[in-house]
Amino acid sequence: MQAGKRNLITDVEGLVVGNASDATIKTGVTVLTSNMAFTAGLQVMGGAPGTRESDLLAPDKTVQQVDALVLSGGSAFGLDAPSGVADAMRLQGRGFPVGDQIVPIVPGAILFDLLNGGDKSWSENPYKQLGAEALADASDLFDLGTVGAGTGATLASLKGGLGSASVVLPSGHTVGALVAVNALGDATVDDSHFWAAPFETDNEFGGLGVAQSYPRGLPRTKMASHAANTTIAIVATDAALDQSQCTRLATAAHDGMARALVPSHTPMDGDLIYGVSTGAKPLDNPALDTLWLGHAAATCLARAIARGVFHATPADKDTVPSYAYR
Amino acid sequence: MQAGKRNLITDVEGLVVGNASDATIKTGVTVLTSNMAFTAGLQVMGGAPGTRESDLLAPDKTVQQVDALVLSGGSAFGLDAPSGVADAMRLQGRGFPVGDQIVPIVPGAILFDLLNGGDKSWSENPYKQLGAEALADASDLFDLGTVGAGTGATLASLKGGLGSASVVLPSGHTVGALVAVNALGDATVDDSHFWAAPFETDNEFGGLGVAQSYPRGLPRTKMASHAANTTIAIVATDAALDQSQCTRLATAAHDGMARALVPSHTPMDGDLIYGVSTGAKPLDNPALDTLWLGHAAATCLARAIARGVFHATPADKDTVPSYAYR
Repeated sequence: MQAGKRNLITDVEGLVVGNASDATIKTGVTVLTSNMAFTAGLQVMGGAPGTRESDLLAPDKTVQQVDALVLSGGSAFGLDAPSGVADAMRLQGRGFPVGDQIVPIVPGAILFDLLNGGDKSWSENPYKQLGAEALADASDLFDLGTVGAGTGATLASLKGGLGSASVVLPSGHTVGALVAVNALGDATVDDSHFWAAPFETDNEFGGLGVAQSYPRGLPRTKMASHAANTTIAIVATDAALDQSQCTRLATAAHDGMARALVPSHTPMDGDLIYGVSTGAKPLDNPALDTLWLGHAAATCLARAIARGVFHATPADKDTVPSYAYR
Repeated sequence: MQAGKRNLITDVEGLVVGNASDATIKTGVTVLTSNMAFTAGLQVMGGAPGTRESDLLAPDKTVQQVDALVLSGGSAFGLDAPSGVADAMRLQGRGFPVGDQIVPIVPGAILFDLLNGGDKSWSENPYKQLGAEALADASDLFDLGTVGAGTGATLASLKGGLGSASVVLPSGHTVGALVAVNALGDATVDDSHFWAAPFETDNEFGGLGVAQSYPRGLPRTKMASHAANTTIAIVATDAALDQSQCTRLATAAHDGMARALVPSHTPMDGDLIYGVSTGAKPLDNPALDTLWLGHAAATCLARAIARGVFHATPADKDTVPSYAYR
């Protein structure tokens, strides 16, 4: 399977990503949006999620499409980020029309980055402003690593970060993943070799291949210091999927999280994945296409997780080293 | 982490497993039970499940404990297997008392093995009888491979089978897994090296280590021939967990399926996992213990999947080779 030309989720045509960060607080926000509303579903697998607007993403609820999705640092405080995005979209006239009013639909999820060495002494919640800035930054090109919602992200042994990857299937459908990697566990077996190595494409995270020896005891986690974490992701495709199919895309993508992070989906991780369809390309063979779309979403997400860690960069007051500077 | 003395789910004290099979039909039934009712939860992740009594396993429902769990071949016809188990238990006076009546609580799940070369021309549904036979066979020792619900199981390239493994955690809690491996995908990267190799303990499935090269294209699946499959599993512990915690144990264990089978959790797999607690040993530190129990369940299940395939044996009219005879 070939990566798309940018190897980013924005290889799914129409999708754009914006990032904003605050280096002092060591936190940030990432927004995925498009000129057109897009279909979205959600699968929560971790034990400690933090979200808003999840209920409307259930396939039996009326609203099937959203205007943006937000990934944010800040734990529950980061749930203000979608407010900044929604208010800015309202001024742009974007959203769900109800009479002469417009309501932007902006679900969002947060990760815990409150114990990462940053200065958390703010008096006014900064996430609404960061959300607005991230929306204003939206583009089809964006950086990976210590960026957006990945700014303050950590793993047990190394810095986390913002990751992305894409793949073009033989059917012509494109699948992309976007992830803020902040797990309780680790993305590397031994600080060098990534758990996701079997799925690496074009040496996109160093090309070291798979580890030759594996830990026999309990793996490293953040439990010694604190127990609040979370990896949050979006998988997207141009294949025309309804909200149920987007939910199943997200479900399948959790396999990528399991393969790239050990341990994963713990009681202290709010691990969740949004599944997105722009609806541009019909399915040729629904049974086969949804099978390969799910596999591609899992594979893309595993690669995106490794890339987010691979591209992390050092910053003041870091509590753990960055992969490339370890 | 050390395996238990049998490296079977029956290392969780009190649990016993029984198997029955029909070599002509190429199918069978596996029962997990105990002298005492045990707490059970369920997490369904595949797109095509076949079950009975799942609804009572939700943590908000009244019944929290079950008398047995059944894994069966036969697709929807296999849902008769729990009937055979329940009727036999009734005669033994085992079940949930209501007035002077006893109702055995026997949830069950099926896998699809109707296109595996067996003679499917039966006129009377055989699964009720197989269920009763499996219950009568229950013991703390049982065989792996082409046994019980794994009798007719297949993967894309090799035979599937019944697998089991166990681990004893540093906390003293034991975790075990039992699985009938019948995925759309494969448990091996290249017919030799298992996807689960990073987690192998004591050369329990051949000790070949990890594959050095990985497929770049779409992985092999059964889609060319048929699209009905399913891997069904039980993870169990002697740690005292309530039904919500059993459900989370099952959720965490799905990571093991993702790591041992590629692809996994597809729209054509009814992949699901029961989480079981005998309640014998209290948790010392609920946050830490549930973290490691979940990780152990995922790791055990990955190993059990590889072991089920490793121990498969050839039989008449097989459609795919057995691992050790490939």
